[in-house]
Amino acid sequence: MGSSQEEVTLLGASGSPFVCRVKIALKLKDVEYKYVEENLGNKSEQLLKYNPVHKKVPVLVHGEKPLAESLVIVEYIDETWNNNPILPSDPYQRALARFWSKFIDDKIVGASWKSVFTVDEKEREKNVAEAYESLQFLENEIKEKKFFGGEELGLVDIAAVYVAFWIPLIQEIAGLELLTSEKFPNLYRWGQEFVNHPIVKESLPPRDPVFGFFKGRYEGLFASK
Amino acid sequence: MGSSQEEVTLLGASGSPFVCRVKIALKLKDVEYKYVEENLGNKSEQLLKYNPVHKKVPVLVHGEKPLAESLVIVEYIDETWNNNPILPSDPYQRALARFWSKFIDDKIVGASWKSVFTVDEKEREKNVAEAYESLQFLENEIKEKKFFGGEELGLVDIAAVYVAFWIPLIQEIAGLELLTSEKFPNLYRWGQEFVNHPIVKESLPPRDPVFGFFKGRYEGLFASK
Repeated sequence: MGSSQEEVTLLGASGSPFVCRVKIALKLKDVEYKYVEENLGNKSEQLLKYNPVHKKVPVLVHGEKPLAESLVIVEYIDETWNNNPILPSDPYQRALARFWSKFIDDKIVGASWKSVFTVDEKEREKNVAEAYESLQFLENEIKEKKFFGGEELGLVDIAAVYVAFWIPLIQEIAGLELLTSEKFPNLYRWGQEFVNHPIVKESLPPRDPVFGFFKGRYEGLFASK
Repeated sequence: MGSSQEEVTLLGASGSPFVCRVKIALKLKDVEYKYVEENLGNKSEQLLKYNPVHKKVPVLVHGEKPLAESLVIVEYIDETWNNNPILPSDPYQRALARFWSKFIDDKIVGASWKSVFTVDEKEREKNVAEAYESLQFLENEIKEKKFFGGEELGLVDIAAVYVAFWIPLIQEIAGLELLTSEKFPNLYRWGQEFVNHPIVKESLPPRDPVFGFFKGRYEGLFASK
């Protein structure tokens, strides 16, 4: 496949779980790429040119072709580089992987984020309840499996990097218990396994600066209350 | 492909644009299926069993395998029945089709819906402004093309059935101008072409009862103000 030889650039921001998804996928496929760290407080011309619709990271630029939206990019990577498949080959299993990835974006990211970064107490509690309910679905889904993808990492695992790395981090900032071994033993066990997978470990941002960054945001939010 | 021979059932609700997407895809592939109309005020045991996560329509049941989320279902249909492709074969074009379908769900459906079904005036105006901005992106994307998919219907066209059929309907209810030939000439022209495509025409619900249904909801919302 000729197009898989073109130059690859990733515009990202190191604290972003969505960027991290793309990093994991590229690492899994062993694709060499140039990484450009964006300053989201002062977005580059390049970011605005390549993602005029959302003006957000991640953006993957393959040759001259730009692409946004993390899950769209991960599927593109899977279809462009055929080694180490990210999606299963069976159509129904592929569909389920897409369903659960979308579930993470729709039902877990927002609710867990707002469980921490919300000033209004009632609103915050509502989000905590929603986050629990949604995490329970993932707990029931992972069961005794090593990864959501089975024995190997797959699309749902990559989408769920937010659950494995970012939820523990933001819950610590807020002194909240969302994902714990008592509440969600299988999901917690999966999270440990996942962040220690060599491909993932190399793709995660260093914890301390990300922790500091979000702690700053958190305290700023409540300081201005 | 043996699995394409199994029985297909669609749980739906005739006023739903998301259900309509699945109907168009099934019709395009010439798949015979059993349609079950759900009463969303009194959901069936079957719906709760097959979509325990969202408890929403559409649900496609293929053999004994249930699947939810309209765009996930449409991609599944495309991968299971290979005639009349819905997604392009080139990975980058496939990724763009997924990007724009997601854009419709994230940026157009919610904003245009809340442009009509919102009591608070400021909130409503904010949504109208967002809907315009997002429709402009689609206007720029369709340009002079017959369909988003080119000469034939594709994933983005199917996702955008909401734009072609539901937006004109709800804007009439509210006496609002969102999608008009003056504001978005190419998108409007596409909408006309699309709803008159034989496959789409057969898949759309009859306009009058859907109009009545949403008019009832609209007036109920403002009556209780």
